[in-house]
Amino acid sequence: MPVKLAIVGVGKIARDQHLPVIAASPDFELAAAASRSTGVEGVKSFTSLAELLDACPEVEAVSLCTPPVGRAQDARLAISRGVHVLLEKPPAATLSEVDDLARRAQAAGVTLFASWHSRFAPAVPAAKAWLQGRTVRAARITWKEDVRVWHPGQEWIFAPGGMGVFDPGVNALSIVTEILPETFALRRGRLVFPSNRQAPIAAELAFEDARGAPIAAELDFLHTGDQRWDIEVETDGGRLVLSKGGSEMTVDGTAATAGAHGPHAEYAPLYAHFARLIAERRSDVDVAPFRHVADAFMIGERVEGPAFAF
Amino acid sequence: MPVKLAIVGVGKIARDQHLPVIAASPDFELAAAASRSTGVEGVKSFTSLAELLDACPEVEAVSLCTPPVGRAQDARLAISRGVHVLLEKPPAATLSEVDDLARRAQAAGVTLFASWHSRFAPAVPAAKAWLQGRTVRAARITWKEDVRVWHPGQEWIFAPGGMGVFDPGVNALSIVTEILPETFALRRGRLVFPSNRQAPIAAELAFEDARGAPIAAELDFLHTGDQRWDIEVETDGGRLVLSKGGSEMTVDGTAATAGAHGPHAEYAPLYAHFARLIAERRSDVDVAPFRHVADAFMIGERVEGPAFAF
Repeated sequence: MPVKLAIVGVGKIARDQHLPVIAASPDFELAAAASRSTGVEGVKSFTSLAELLDACPEVEAVSLCTPPVGRAQDARLAISRGVHVLLEKPPAATLSEVDDLARRAQAAGVTLFASWHSRFAPAVPAAKAWLQGRTVRAARITWKEDVRVWHPGQEWIFAPGGMGVFDPGVNALSIVTEILPETFALRRGRLVFPSNRQAPIAAELAFEDARGAPIAAELDFLHTGDQRWDIEVETDGGRLVLSKGGSEMTVDGTAATAGAHGPHAEYAPLYAHFARLIAERRSDVDVAPFRHVADAFMIGERVEGPAFAF
Repeated sequence: MPVKLAIVGVGKIARDQHLPVIAASPDFELAAAASRSTGVEGVKSFTSLAELLDACPEVEAVSLCTPPVGRAQDARLAISRGVHVLLEKPPAATLSEVDDLARRAQAAGVTLFASWHSRFAPAVPAAKAWLQGRTVRAARITWKEDVRVWHPGQEWIFAPGGMGVFDPGVNALSIVTEILPETFALRRGRLVFPSNRQAPIAAELAFEDARGAPIAAELDFLHTGDQRWDIEVETDGGRLVLSKGGSEMTVDGTAATAGAHGPHAEYAPLYAHFARLIAERRSDVDVAPFRHVADAFMIGERVEGPAFAF
């Protein structure tokens, strides 16, 4: 029996990824949708999660695809009704909210999945496996994209809590925290805030792992031309390059096998994982990527850059 | 048998609090000290924790009173040698480091105590007990002090990672997270950064608890005259005021009984708690106060204020 699922927040990510993946999944059946503006054709639609849960007691799980601010309130409501929850990334507006949700889900015995879609990119499992048992000497993250192409007119991304360049940057951090064998922490950071904005448009971060290996990250939201989402790792056993956001991998220049590509390469396994978590009544809440972002805001140096307009 | 303790970082807080409290404690015996500049009279002194641990294998526990940047490396070293660790507040430079230390301590079976001295202020346990079972309607934190009096010339406090007004503010947060019956999370914040500094000198924070009650905080580092470290809580069963940093308490205007006052009112019970944790092989690592600080840096609005000079 597929799990009866509702979706909350029917925006771009829901239409591009969640809805087609749910439609194709043997594990889930879309039972209802809630959205402030638009519904989903052929599915019972509501304007709030509270109405949805009152009207559809058969709903067993919910995917929260609304913006992070306000998402924790919906998650708390779902958990209090015994409904399993998938959170889009980042899992909430604050780390305190995520911690609270994790405790509530555990107490209620429901599954909470703080999802990081980039961890399901085709080459990430192979990269993780290859790095196990190897000693990292250095790593470099290069995450450079053009915000005007990927987030046209999305003013919220530069508002307080919008995270700016960390909105894509946290995807890189979600991969690196998944594949590296050692934990790491930020030593120094430099964040460039446009003079007219409340979130950074570029960042340079210097992390260090538990053995002292440097992990550098360069995040840029004003990068035109070839877009770059690359992670390079130098180890005692060779050099791994994970490129295109985790979808391709080479070891010492030779291409390695990766999982299936395609438009839903990340979200199909992501939903399969959610189904497994529900079946096993487990949660998966790893705040490590989000915590690195908060650390960067807390201890990073702030530099003012030119004003930004879309 | 008292626990053989070493102290690392012999600065103002070590001399004012840690050393006299350890000297008076039946639970601990000061065995060695490490400090970059100065030692402790009559005690074996070293310039680094590594030298100290090599030379003094009898040391069972260590208090880390160095500045937060770099403290995690010392903590990791101590844990790897099976030595129990007390961390001054804040527990490290980043949340990622604290998480890493907690995992390592658990794996090694040693005690890690991320201490929050304000939680041991005389009236805090009574305030917590009084609030249990009551419904909070609103709370207000007023933490206003003169940085020039309390941190004269301490340039590091306004450097990246120095936390600025959150250095005292986290003490308020450590009390509120301890005494309130519900968790809470930041909704909006406004942080004032002096034009020539990298950490805020004032902050207004609007939290909300899980039942929707507002918790406001006003932090000010430029407050002359009467210094204020007050927490007011309106409940369904009366109004609690915790003043003077947690040392005095009233309920509906009537003074309530508090624990012992005196120059070491916080650190004496703090060390008694550390001794209990060691005896029971438990850790006490609550990052909630520090996490609220990181959340404030991450989602708070930034406003530029006048340049600051000591």
